[in-house]
Amino acid sequence: MKKVAIGIDIGGTNSLVGFVDESGKVFLEASMSTLIGDTFEEYLDALYATVTEAQASSDEEFEIIGIGVGAPNGNYYKGTIEFAPNLKWKGVIRVAHLMGQKFGVPAVLTNDANAAAIGEMLFGGAKGMKNFIIITLGTGLGSGIVVNGELVYGHDGFAGELGHVIVQKGGRLCGCGRRGCLETYASATGIKRTAFEVIADRNQETILSKYSYDDLTSFKLYEAAQNGDHLAREIFRETGKVLGEALADFVASSSPEAIFLFGGLANAGELILEPTEKSMEENLLHIFKNKVKLKISSLDEGNAAVVGAAALAWKEFKS
Amino acid sequence: MKKVAIGIDIGGTNSLVGFVDESGKVFLEASMSTLIGDTFEEYLDALYATVTEAQASSDEEFEIIGIGVGAPNGNYYKGTIEFAPNLKWKGVIRVAHLMGQKFGVPAVLTNDANAAAIGEMLFGGAKGMKNFIIITLGTGLGSGIVVNGELVYGHDGFAGELGHVIVQKGGRLCGCGRRGCLETYASATGIKRTAFEVIADRNQETILSKYSYDDLTSFKLYEAAQNGDHLAREIFRETGKVLGEALADFVASSSPEAIFLFGGLANAGELILEPTEKSMEENLLHIFKNKVKLKISSLDEGNAAVVGAAALAWKEFKS
Repeated sequence: MKKVAIGIDIGGTNSLVGFVDESGKVFLEASMSTLIGDTFEEYLDALYATVTEAQASSDEEFEIIGIGVGAPNGNYYKGTIEFAPNLKWKGVIRVAHLMGQKFGVPAVLTNDANAAAIGEMLFGGAKGMKNFIIITLGTGLGSGIVVNGELVYGHDGFAGELGHVIVQKGGRLCGCGRRGCLETYASATGIKRTAFEVIADRNQETILSKYSYDDLTSFKLYEAAQNGDHLAREIFRETGKVLGEALADFVASSSPEAIFLFGGLANAGELILEPTEKSMEENLLHIFKNKVKLKISSLDEGNAAVVGAAALAWKEFKS
Repeated sequence: MKKVAIGIDIGGTNSLVGFVDESGKVFLEASMSTLIGDTFEEYLDALYATVTEAQASSDEEFEIIGIGVGAPNGNYYKGTIEFAPNLKWKGVIRVAHLMGQKFGVPAVLTNDANAAAIGEMLFGGAKGMKNFIIITLGTGLGSGIVVNGELVYGHDGFAGELGHVIVQKGGRLCGCGRRGCLETYASATGIKRTAFEVIADRNQETILSKYSYDDLTSFKLYEAAQNGDHLAREIFRETGKVLGEALADFVASSSPEAIFLFGGLANAGELILEPTEKSMEENLLHIFKNKVKLKISSLDEGNAAVVGAAALAWKEFKS
């Protein structure tokens, strides 16, 4: 029987499931709506049915060593999702406990960025690294910090909130209620905000002027820049500048071997990597200059969260 | 025979030595000039003579389990002091190796702030804590970050340079050549710079107006504030505000249980603690509010570096 861990990625809208072996290979994949049912217990019943069904449809037999869950506001120590603004369940949900009970195998949970960090460490570009940071550039900015080969969870399980480091006093309003957080500048949403600021400031010809705020995406900015739109290229440079300055500060704290960029905005590749690296190097304290590798994550964005969550289960439950 | 570790604190001017037992109790203490001799080897000969003499003068017999050294620009991984601007030896000095050879016991080295962190963890207010930060507020700002019970050294051994996080873009010129580093605001030197800015801005009556830049110290600022000088109190508030903002960002990164302030400026006690805590709490991301203890270090400043360096030796060489 093939030994696998079940990786589960709980998103605001969809939940993805995958059976992942010790090398990171994905065997079965399934998805369902996160919005099913009124309570977490009803959602869990549906999830269990989805997994059982997927298993039944396969010719192969699997031995499940455990479950890893990645979820927004996931707390590793407690196995809970706590007050997640983007999920429908309110308050504190004992996800790992309930998941373990339902499936009859041990379960462990962390937030999505930490899951990506563990995926990168076990199956991706951070293999063999003991000290690195992953920055996820999606709707917001998430981060997973690895020190001495271990995820930094901190005293309460909520460490690694680099998206909420203040990079501009009195700057842009953040969803957290404060102003000037890094994620309001460096994320798929942040670059869109920069775009609107730059367009407003310049009032000059650009492909971008035809998009509403609702329509503009980091992918459309990428396309515009690839097509030679000067303003779009400048918007990437400006975003990389702010991100690079922040990364230089993070290096002063944990001195990582590498920093990986992942997700939405990171898909722009060199367009975001090059100005970020330039800005980081310019701002690094001299003892850190030309030491830190800045890379795009080698994980497949389609199932990275599932693979990362499964990696966590492999890390915890491998006997 | 009493088992001890030798703790050695190498400062720019003086070197302090102490024999420290496993509970942190200091038995023998000695000091000598760091400026003795032309080379590190000559300094080491003198140090060895100092230690042997101190030992000979004691009635008690000691078994030395190892040596711990705290030094500016000390690299834990390599056991070297590297390009220390405040020490007379140039380039890379293999301190741990040479020290171990000379004394015939294993030796380990780290920078002074990391030594203080280990001292705090083994013998001070951080006993039993797995996640905390110590901030040393001397001429500059040093820091030691502990995660999962281990010092964060990072990939190259130079992690924990929180004094060189940029808190004000284009701000005060720092000794590192950049502008706006935290230590240019929050340190014994930083508060003096703030004092001169505030005095210049206000041009109003203050005890402080009689001091030259050379004469003003953080202790004199403390005395002035204790004597009710309004401007002096404001200077502490302003310093605490900047430090608290920075601490809030550090919490978002590693989510410590506590942050300890140590050294020079920290001796002002509540005068610096209260505005720093107020500012930190105001600036924390909501999930971290009212969770992080801010404390003055419980280590005795007189021999904290020696005790911390010895603590490192105990941590490494206790069999």
